[in-house]
Amino acid sequence: MKHLIDPTDLSKQELEEIIDLALDIIDNREKYSEKCKGKKLATLFYEPSTRTRLSFTAAMMELGGNVLGFSDAKNSSVSKGETCADTTKVINCFADIIAMRHFEEGAATVSAMNSRIPVINAGDGSHSHPTQTLTDLLTIKREIGRFDNITIGFCGDLKFGRTVHSLIKALSRYEGVKVVLIAPEQLRLPDYMKQEVCDMHGVPYKEVDTMEEVMGELDVLYMTRVQKERFFDEDEYDRVKDFFVLDAEKLKSARPEMRILHPLPRVNEISVDVDADPRAAYFRQVENGKFVRMALIVKLLEWANDPTKTTELVPKDAVRNKFICRNKRCISNMEVGVDSLFRPAHDHSGDYRCVYCESKPK
Amino acid sequence: MKHLIDPTDLSKQELEEIIDLALDIIDNREKYSEKCKGKKLATLFYEPSTRTRLSFTAAMMELGGNVLGFSDAKNSSVSKGETCADTTKVINCFADIIAMRHFEEGAATVSAMNSRIPVINAGDGSHSHPTQTLTDLLTIKREIGRFDNITIGFCGDLKFGRTVHSLIKALSRYEGVKVVLIAPEQLRLPDYMKQEVCDMHGVPYKEVDTMEEVMGELDVLYMTRVQKERFFDEDEYDRVKDFFVLDAEKLKSARPEMRILHPLPRVNEISVDVDADPRAAYFRQVENGKFVRMALIVKLLEWANDPTKTTELVPKDAVRNKFICRNKRCISNMEVGVDSLFRPAHDHSGDYRCVYCESKPK
Amino acid sequence: MKHLIDPTDLSKQELEEIIDLALDIIDNREKYSEKCKGKKLATLFYEPSTRTRLSFTAAMMELGGNVLGFSDAKNSSVSKGETCADTTKVINCFADIIAMRHFEEGAATVSAMNSRIPVINAGDGSHSHPTQTLTDLLTIKREIGRFDNITIGFCGDLKFGRTVHSLIKALSRYEGVKVVLIAPEQLRLPDYMKQEVCDMHGVPYKEVDTMEEVMGELDVLYMTRVQKERFFDEDEYDRVKDFFVLDAEKLKSARPEMRILHPLPRVNEISVDVDADPRAAYFRQVENGKFVRMALIVKLLEWANDPTKTTELVPKDAVRNKFICRNKRCISNMEVGVDSLFRPAHDHSGDYRCVYCESKPK
Repeated sequence: MKHLIDPTDLSKQELEEIIDLALDIIDNREKYSEKCKGKKLATLFYEPSTRTRLSFTAAMMELGGNVLGFSDAKNSSVSKGETCADTTKVINCFADIIAMRHFEEGAATVSAMNSRIPVINAGDGSHSHPTQTLTDLLTIKREIGRFDNITIGFCGDLKFGRTVHSLIKALSRYEGVKVVLIAPEQLRLPDYMKQEVCDMHGVPYKEVDTMEEVMGELDVLYMTRVQKERFFDEDEYDRVKDFFVLDAEKLKSARPEMRILHPLPRVNEISVDVDADPRAAYFRQVENGKFVRMALIVKLLEWANDPTKTTELVPKDAVRNKFICRNKRCISNMEVGVDSLFRPAHDHSGDYRCVYCESKPK
Repeated sequence: MKHLIDPTDLSKQELEEIIDLALDIIDNREKYSEKCKGKKLATLFYEPSTRTRLSFTAAMMELGGNVLGFSDAKNSSVSKGETCADTTKVINCFADIIAMRHFEEGAATVSAMNSRIPVINAGDGSHSHPTQTLTDLLTIKREIGRFDNITIGFCGDLKFGRTVHSLIKALSRYEGVKVVLIAPEQLRLPDYMKQEVCDMHGVPYKEVDTMEEVMGELDVLYMTRVQKERFFDEDEYDRVKDFFVLDAEKLKSARPEMRILHPLPRVNEISVDVDADPRAAYFRQVENGKFVRMALIVKLLEWANDPTKTTELVPKDAVRNKFICRNKRCISNMEVGVDSLFRPAHDHSGDYRCVYCESKPK
Repeated sequence: MKHLIDPTDLSKQELEEIIDLALDIIDNREKYSEKCKGKKLATLFYEPSTRTRLSFTAAMMELGGNVLGFSDAKNSSVSKGETCADTTKVINCFADIIAMRHFEEGAATVSAMNSRIPVINAGDGSHSHPTQTLTDLLTIKREIGRFDNITIGFCGDLKFGRTVHSLIKALSRYEGVKVVLIAPEQLRLPDYMKQEVCDMHGVPYKEVDTMEEVMGELDVLYMTRVQKERFFDEDEYDRVKDFFVLDAEKLKSARPEMRILHPLPRVNEISVDVDADPRAAYFRQVENGKFVRMALIVKLLEWANDPTKTTELVPKDAVRNKFICRNKRCISNMEVGVDSLFRPAHDHSGDYRCVYCESKPK
């Protein structure tokens, strides 16, 4: 069974198959309008996320399928203490494919381990949100026309932003990609991203303090929010916050072909005076999110009947119940019956990483 | 683009087109059962209102369309602080038409200003609730057979009842309409309704203290609830409350063709011993609400492709960011990025009225 | 009109018709995929119950019908104080059949009394949950092949477990059924179940303290949860709790054809090491719940047009407004406008039982 828990579950070829299918769907809406007739998508949202939930819902409806589920754990059996594993087995009787959003990291992995139908991770805590990455990639494809030979600036919270990390990983598979990092000192890209991703894949990066100094170089500017709570020092926050707000003035030095992306919701990090600019692609990005989810649903349902398509949920070199994860929000620490699972880190350091959430052992 | 924010957005002719279509739908259910196949209605309910939400949902389903949305802001991105404007732009990617319920007055106006698809106001605070007015009108049409030459009594809270104000405005367009106002002193129809609506359109009205004294004259008795909280003086409430409760006894002097309407939910202002009386039309009114919403959805989707059909969201004589609205629940005071907008009052007094909520400036 | 409020509303023949239809649906999925096209099921869940709600939803979708409703009373008009009777009359305008879950006992009865469309009780407090009983029966039919000549063990909370009582009642209609009761002293099957059901229908039963001592005799082991809150004495709970937990070890003495049922959700009363055993039927039971609800919906919609099919909501020998129910959670004590209704107890003792909840008068 093929699931989508993390963007890396897809090979470069599989990912491009999904992108290509999304492009075909965009051009031939009618052709796909009954593609999933009689199929059901379960949207299991243990925390509210309207945009993601409605994107999946609209996607399945435009394929002629049905949608059932819950939009908040308070309205679900979770309040009666059912495990994620049991809920998955129950939902397997009601649906053909699952999209799960959970506040516990690794929840979608546990669900997939217990599922006879494909599971899509619609966000598990701050761990992974692969359909956002697919959305970003389809937007780059449609707006820029290619994945290789692009210079992409990431602005805002590069330390905690899971969408930033995932998109850098995904683009690191392509030639000629350059990354520009625009962040306050406190929110810089973590070292392991620089070393294990950029350096290992030969992706040049540079760090700058303001977007103005690099605006003219960029093909893509990927904006994220700088949250006050991330700062220990409020004065420091007040000092830097305006540096990471995009407005029409700052946009003047950008090239006409440059495109602005944002995973939304935005608060004030993009001024509304930018919205009418043709370079503002963030609302088009929302629609791309729907199209790429349509393509993903079609592909996963197709792959479910293909025994050669599998997701390796437990790596062959994983060790079971030997370590304890240091991440308190990891599902291995929160749900009974979930074995601890660790695999050797990819950097051959001898360290181990949690299979559910990629944290280190305690 | 044509929206429905306030009943006055529809001309008399457009309104009658919708009523006529509703009547045709009632007679030819099968003919419309796939009318909206492949279309999606977004029900964006920032506060719960089961009856209205399910009425829209049933309407769209009986047209063969799909429904997505949320039933409570707590389960939506609103908790993450997204503006109504941004949410509308996002939902534009997922649906073909929006029905919005909001606790902020003017929210549907802001949504319409940011929308490429039709927006229906499903109630914005105590400002407007136009599909209730359409429901009332279809019920009068079906039960009485005409809009002109009717005597209609309004009983209960005539001061704050938005459905009462809207229905009086709508009926004031017809000949021979007489209005009887049955309300406690504290909850009488506001002066501006008497002057700007009744007097200006030549609608005779009279105010009485009890329904018994006028029961025999009425073609329609429109009941609403008298809420205890509206009274400063609890003794006064206790003294008058029973005057505004309809029961089988009081109904004895009514004519056999008279009809009782109520927007529901009722608490105790209509005794259950009235329910079985053929003059009790309030549950039939619920079904009319579904039919008129079906007609409205069909018409707005049709008009969306007609460039001559527009809603003037910003009046030509409006002034921008000059005044501040005195209404704390007005969206211009609650959401960033919403310009203040005022237009001259229709009574040529030189006063201004808020474009979002019709309040005066501070 | 035929409703399903309590399993006893169905004759043995009607029940078998539903089971047989469920079996036909399982074998001929395609044949039923548009059986309810154009029909709408209203799921009115005054308290959350994800599994039951999604089972009904999936069932209606697999019949080609639509589903609308609410999943929690907080998001419904109930917060505005509308009665169950009025809500039912409103929903009659929007749907073709109702599934109602309510925390008040007798709520579905009141709904049915006010409904022109079939009402299915999806659980009313601790009173009745008939579709769980249908689910259990279909599972026994599919797993064991018959209803007669079976020995069924009930383990856990036999005092408060409504599913246990209902299933014993349903099976008591068949020949050769033997019941084994495995429960702590505090949670034994109530005397009236032993006398009015088992003894009256000639069903032999025995009470034991551990499942081990009877495991080899059983055709079916029906597990339920022993809740700590049911015990006055915590030490006593700690002493006995493990006796009522099923694990792989205890299962060793069971026959290969034995089957384990559980209404779910389970907490820890069935160890996860049992899940992979072919005798563990509880997740297959979930799917049976969907199939039997499909059959029930089809049958009730069919019977709605058959004047010979009725549910006797008010027994002919009932007395109105003479007694008051002693059950605080009975709808007759909680909702205005609901008459008190009592009927003579079936045991000819001269006692009376509440028509809504089967409690005694005060």
